[in-house]
Amino acid sequence: MSEKTMSVEEHKQKMQEQQRQVRAKIADAKTRRGVIIYLYGNGKGKSSSAFGTLARSLGHGKKGAVVQFIKGKWKTGEQAIFRQLGVKHLVMGTGFTWDTQDREKDIAAAEAVWSKAVPLFRDPAYDIVILDEITYMFKYGYLSVADVCEVLLARPEQQNAIVTGRDAIPELLEIADTISEVREVRHAFNQGVKAQKGIEF
Amino acid sequence: MSEKTMSVEEHKQKMQEQQRQVRAKIADAKTRRGVIIYLYGNGKGKSSSAFGTLARSLGHGKKGAVVQFIKGKWKTGEQAIFRQLGVKHLVMGTGFTWDTQDREKDIAAAEAVWSKAVPLFRDPAYDIVILDEITYMFKYGYLSVADVCEVLLARPEQQNAIVTGRDAIPELLEIADTISEVREVRHAFNQGVKAQKGIEF
Repeated sequence: MSEKTMSVEEHKQKMQEQQRQVRAKIADAKTRRGVIIYLYGNGKGKSSSAFGTLARSLGHGKKGAVVQFIKGKWKTGEQAIFRQLGVKHLVMGTGFTWDTQDREKDIAAAEAVWSKAVPLFRDPAYDIVILDEITYMFKYGYLSVADVCEVLLARPEQQNAIVTGRDAIPELLEIADTISEVREVRHAFNQGVKAQKGIEF
Repeated sequence: MSEKTMSVEEHKQKMQEQQRQVRAKIADAKTRRGVIIYLYGNGKGKSSSAFGTLARSLGHGKKGAVVQFIKGKWKTGEQAIFRQLGVKHLVMGTGFTWDTQDREKDIAAAEAVWSKAVPLFRDPAYDIVILDEITYMFKYGYLSVADVCEVLLARPEQQNAIVTGRDAIPELLEIADTISEVREVRHAFNQGVKAQKGIEF
């Protein structure tokens, strides 16, 4: 039966059943610990989602950090808002790999930013740490996924980590607590609409 | 050939080709206008993504508004940060439908918040307006999807709209410029991890 055609009483019964199920699930979920959230896929919204979750955490008075790979040369709207909100922000800072065209330089830049990121994952003062667009680093062999996973798994128990990137990396799929695939169904860019401030960067 | 085993020269050539393709695509994208972004699916990250894009827009000095359906009874981290950043925020305010169990009351609440949302879509001062979790309203027949699409399509030319919700609504798929499906691959909640402040709400 369609949701729209059910009677008031049927609607009420259905909602009561849903409420019961939701409450049972909440009662079952007893563990209090930080999680690893992994957002991958070719669709728009992965980094935005990580930043939105960060914003929500800041709203609860939590402390956060963002480590961005690849997009360093862009002057982003993120950067301005992170500064305003007191978020620790590390950027790889060499721009897109197709702009540098220099593998050795890219690797050195990746290792440099990663070495500054590691202490964040050892500091319980940080409630949430984001590794944005890191999957390119694994795809191109700039960083070791095993090393990164080891650091993620050894982080403080209550710390949350969000990992984003286009690629589905098996090792990350293995260790993440919550995983969403963001799949592109349509993108305005492919219909001739210019990338715009605030929406794309 | 694997990305990791290619020579320096091969890597450089591949990056040059990618750079050429990206530049050609940017040159083709000439239209400057606001877009409708639609994020649907059963995965975590849709609302967060909308809020992250909003945060990025605010970082560029843009003006934004958020209209939230369903989640009104939760005291969210979003609300605190929206207030801090000067975002106009409307909430339906009746809680989850399985909590109210009263169809008439839900419809009245949906219509009330929608009537306050319409003027935002007629005001060019707003650069970005989010309709968060609105697809439930269509699924349950609380709001007319045709009416909402009409208002979205008639908005100021440079205004961006982001629509989120679990369901793939055909009318929204039809009119959206950019569409991502957020698919749940795994969720910590199903493994007994409690919903936590800043991450889930």
